[in-house]
Amino acid sequence: MNALRIPAPSLRPSVMESFLAEIHQTHRGETGGALADYIPELTRADPACFGIALVTADGQPYAVGDSKIPFTIQSISKALVYGLALEDHGVEGVLAKVGVEPSGDAFNAIVFDERTNRPFNPMVNAGAIATTGLIQGHGAGERTGRIIEMFRRYTGRTLAVDEAVFASETATGHRNRAITWLMHNFGMVDARVDEHLEVYFRQCSLLVTAEDLAMMGATLANGGVNPVTGERALDARYVKFVTAAMASCGMYDFAGEWSFRVGIPAKSGVGGGILAVLPGQLGIGTFSPLLDAQGNSLRGIRCCEEFSRRFDLHIFDPIRPGAMSVARVYRGSQVRSKVMRRERERHLLEAHGGQIVVLELQGELQFSAAEQVLSHASRVVNAAPEACGHLILDLNRVVRISGAARDMLARLQCELAAQGIDLYVSGGGGHAAFMAAGGLPEACFYATLDAALEHCEAAVLARSLQADVESAGALPLTEMELLAGLGKEDLGRVAALLSPHSFAAGASIIRQGDEASSLFFLSRGRVAIRIPGAADTPIRLASVGPGVAFGEMALLDGGRRSADAVAETDCQVLSLEVGDLESLGRERPGIVTVITANIARVMSGRLRSANAELQALAR
Amino acid sequence: MNALRIPAPSLRPSVMESFLAEIHQTHRGETGGALADYIPELTRADPACFGIALVTADGQPYAVGDSKIPFTIQSISKALVYGLALEDHGVEGVLAKVGVEPSGDAFNAIVFDERTNRPFNPMVNAGAIATTGLIQGHGAGERTGRIIEMFRRYTGRTLAVDEAVFASETATGHRNRAITWLMHNFGMVDARVDEHLEVYFRQCSLLVTAEDLAMMGATLANGGVNPVTGERALDARYVKFVTAAMASCGMYDFAGEWSFRVGIPAKSGVGGGILAVLPGQLGIGTFSPLLDAQGNSLRGIRCCEEFSRRFDLHIFDPIRPGAMSVARVYRGSQVRSKVMRRERERHLLEAHGGQIVVLELQGELQFSAAEQVLSHASRVVNAAPEACGHLILDLNRVVRISGAARDMLARLQCELAAQGIDLYVSGGGGHAAFMAAGGLPEACFYATLDAALEHCEAAVLARSLQADVESAGALPLTEMELLAGLGKEDLGRVAALLSPHSFAAGASIIRQGDEASSLFFLSRGRVAIRIPGAADTPIRLASVGPGVAFGEMALLDGGRRSADAVAETDCQVLSLEVGDLESLGRERPGIVTVITANIARVMSGRLRSANAELQALAR
Repeated sequence: MNALRIPAPSLRPSVMESFLAEIHQTHRGETGGALADYIPELTRADPACFGIALVTADGQPYAVGDSKIPFTIQSISKALVYGLALEDHGVEGVLAKVGVEPSGDAFNAIVFDERTNRPFNPMVNAGAIATTGLIQGHGAGERTGRIIEMFRRYTGRTLAVDEAVFASETATGHRNRAITWLMHNFGMVDARVDEHLEVYFRQCSLLVTAEDLAMMGATLANGGVNPVTGERALDARYVKFVTAAMASCGMYDFAGEWSFRVGIPAKSGVGGGILAVLPGQLGIGTFSPLLDAQGNSLRGIRCCEEFSRRFDLHIFDPIRPGAMSVARVYRGSQVRSKVMRRERERHLLEAHGGQIVVLELQGELQFSAAEQVLSHASRVVNAAPEACGHLILDLNRVVRISGAARDMLARLQCELAAQGIDLYVSGGGGHAAFMAAGGLPEACFYATLDAALEHCEAAVLARSLQADVESAGALPLTEMELLAGLGKEDLGRVAALLSPHSFAAGASIIRQGDEASSLFFLSRGRVAIRIPGAADTPIRLASVGPGVAFGEMALLDGGRRSADAVAETDCQVLSLEVGDLESLGRERPGIVTVITANIARVMSGRLRSANAELQALAR
Repeated sequence: MNALRIPAPSLRPSVMESFLAEIHQTHRGETGGALADYIPELTRADPACFGIALVTADGQPYAVGDSKIPFTIQSISKALVYGLALEDHGVEGVLAKVGVEPSGDAFNAIVFDERTNRPFNPMVNAGAIATTGLIQGHGAGERTGRIIEMFRRYTGRTLAVDEAVFASETATGHRNRAITWLMHNFGMVDARVDEHLEVYFRQCSLLVTAEDLAMMGATLANGGVNPVTGERALDARYVKFVTAAMASCGMYDFAGEWSFRVGIPAKSGVGGGILAVLPGQLGIGTFSPLLDAQGNSLRGIRCCEEFSRRFDLHIFDPIRPGAMSVARVYRGSQVRSKVMRRERERHLLEAHGGQIVVLELQGELQFSAAEQVLSHASRVVNAAPEACGHLILDLNRVVRISGAARDMLARLQCELAAQGIDLYVSGGGGHAAFMAAGGLPEACFYATLDAALEHCEAAVLARSLQADVESAGALPLTEMELLAGLGKEDLGRVAALLSPHSFAAGASIIRQGDEASSLFFLSRGRVAIRIPGAADTPIRLASVGPGVAFGEMALLDGGRRSADAVAETDCQVLSLEVGDLESLGRERPGIVTVITANIARVMSGRLRSANAELQALAR
């Protein structure tokens, strides 16, 4: 016995599973409804069976109860096979044979649209058989194989046909046979009437579980890609059409009330399954074979109603979207690139950095989000136009960009350019190619916000009519910030200890871990202070400009270098051995005190900037 | 002439308006269709009229063309009056008289649900008249007044009745009269048949513009509140039902195909208007009186189709949701409260601060977002359970929390508490009361992330079995970080210059702008460094703990104080006049050099922390 041992905490069963268990518990007592009896095989189902599964659009699965018990998919297959028909013939090709209008009639009604002789929609038997009639392939075997292969992409496994149910459907499907011949009479299906019926009966007899249904739903919710396997099950263009057909016609003649009360597009089958899809969010699969008068699973309906109500999932509820797309707005006077500049440049950027405006975007950029960006940009520009010369859209936290949003941002770039305002896009990583294809010029893209800021700062400094320090000659010692306040004589003593070095762009000046025995004054060029990052990509902590020192901590603690220093451009530096300075200090202690105080002052200034930046970033 | 004057840049016409103008331009050439002719008045409309308006759910309006031309609302009124009936009788009360099942029949069909004798849905004439029959009030005048008042809340203005159209409808509405008598026969409307018809004809004859329709749509999209006036037009509970009924039945016998092709819930009227609603995002209003065979505005349909396609607005398109709810995850070892601690405590927090995990949430917290939070929390806890003792959910950037999300977080708190993990919620401001109502204990809430971090840090330090420094006596001089490295004799010389002071909690120690002539060593208690913020709320830059100095910049630049210092608890401090130290320095320069170097070292440490924090915040 080990009384002190604390068991490892765990969130199993997870919070979500505890909710599912409650919903399952609430509805398991519902024993109304009846087993389907139109074919003998279905009456053998266990009426007590009850399973619920949920899979999020990013593939997180949850399940409770009999979620792994197989049953026949029946009419739920209609929705998915409709997607395959769309892939085979396109939207207009399919619409020529099958409408998408809810008819208000029962699933097995023999009614057709008078004007066109089309079956009303793909979710009634007539429309579903016509849809199956559109599935390409030679013979029933190949066509059934394509359907089973499609289901494998949705579920991640190969579904089996329940041969007893198939035989039963085949033996008793006289009404469906009549419907099919009537449709052949109208020219809605071709002469392979028996073959179409065989494929249709087989597709209805496929064995699935509630978990399979939830995964199919999650695949539709995820734009047609199975979120666990990553495999595409349905062309992205057709996902919304499958879901829309489910929404308007999926629940037989209960579809309108379902859409009204539950508001989650769904398809049910007389095998007892319901598949529900909330686009972009999740898929639900339920299984309970007790059906109501319309042929829908009674417990399944109750579960979905409770899901919708309890988790606010009604698709027409205006709760969903709106996540702020503009997380923060700040200006170049508040947040700077990592380029460390001398006081004069810093003051210029304090005064004029406000011309650089950063909109930090987040989340999903679709129409509404992009409209918010345009609106913000318009406000920034119109509020004080002379104060905005550079607009940076930072996409670092944007997860996805829709084509619409891209086009809107591309147009914003044009409008701003016409007004002399530059638009830049930073941190777009994976989105850059997509956005460039929408018309945003190459030159707008920067890999990081830091790089975009650096570019804009350089433009602001150049515009400030100051001589471009970097292109001028090497900086004199009097301009070195760590030597400020030293008298002429002391400066001369220090100068005598300095050794000049030149480094070509890319050369290493200091290596992390080396002994820190000297400090450096940069008189020309740019030096990056960086540490090794993941995947061989170094992280730039700072970039040092002329007049600024680096490696100065050597003077304070003389330990080891904490970062690399690498020449970003061709550079000239002056090095100072700490030992030499200490010797000089013993003779003239004031020199070391002045330099140390300068270090403290520079650190304090940088700390103040960092704190200001932290404050800006905390909104 | 002033050739140098640069015109102020402006984004008028806005980018969005330029898109609208393009869509208008594309479809103005469409001159097919015909004016409604079932009443003579409608044939007088100008077939060239064509207006488009769009209002976002946050009230941003855009319009192009004849967006201010009035026309009669006709059947569009059915959707809004349905909302009023829901307010008067509740969902079940209304469903008892009018179904929500699409019938596939024309708008003026005389067909009823065989099982119930109800009209199929509120968007066909029969259902709409039955719905108007449910509007409460005494006499046609009062009931019409309530309807007009409702439209005022939606549009922000009082709509007028077109008396000529009203007279025309009254004179020729024989079919509607027949339908109403038949419904009275079935018991679906009461005996006030003429009164119901008068109210119905008046509601259909109200004059609106495309801009009015867009504002109604935006109001529905905004959960029933007009986003410009802030007035509630429809009880939030019923918004989704109105939108759902529009989605399944709003476009007459074209509703299924509309939902399929356009996917934006909408209602059209034979006056030439279409009102479309994308929940949570926007409302669209179009006006063009040329109608297609189903009685829908032809150009209106084309516009909405193009809107949907061009801006990816199809509601069943899984592009919408998903904005990451967890913006950043970091640990107390990376990001700290603003409490400045001595080295020993800092080291303890570096070692053990990882027990504090911060999930920074953003955007709209609904089901999917909350599920992501649970999933993240579960991952953090299960990954290395002993390493998470405190979980902070920072809501600073959360714009809205749904009831479902609240309940899910409340349950997370319970589950974590059972495992000995504390859950805190920071920055929830406006959400705190709402979340507390969901069962989250008071003690979980902190106004700011800083305050929550401070609380958790204190718990981590206490757990680290270190004597609680703050409750122990005053700290000796040897523990002051700025005096580290001074020999015994030098320390004695400095001690002789120090004056002890006591301050009660809340007392002011330093004021911003005062002359900086001394620095302070804190030997007991806690001192806040802060600057005045907006609305008299000071911003805490830092909080100083025992062993740490403040006002130390006096030694470096001797300017004025840049911030206030205020005792957060009862404090003991030791002050040191800079002048006295300088005098001492003339005698023993090494002392000042050591103290200055310590300042630089401390600054450097703080800068390193600030940079680490910036890096964590940049994700």
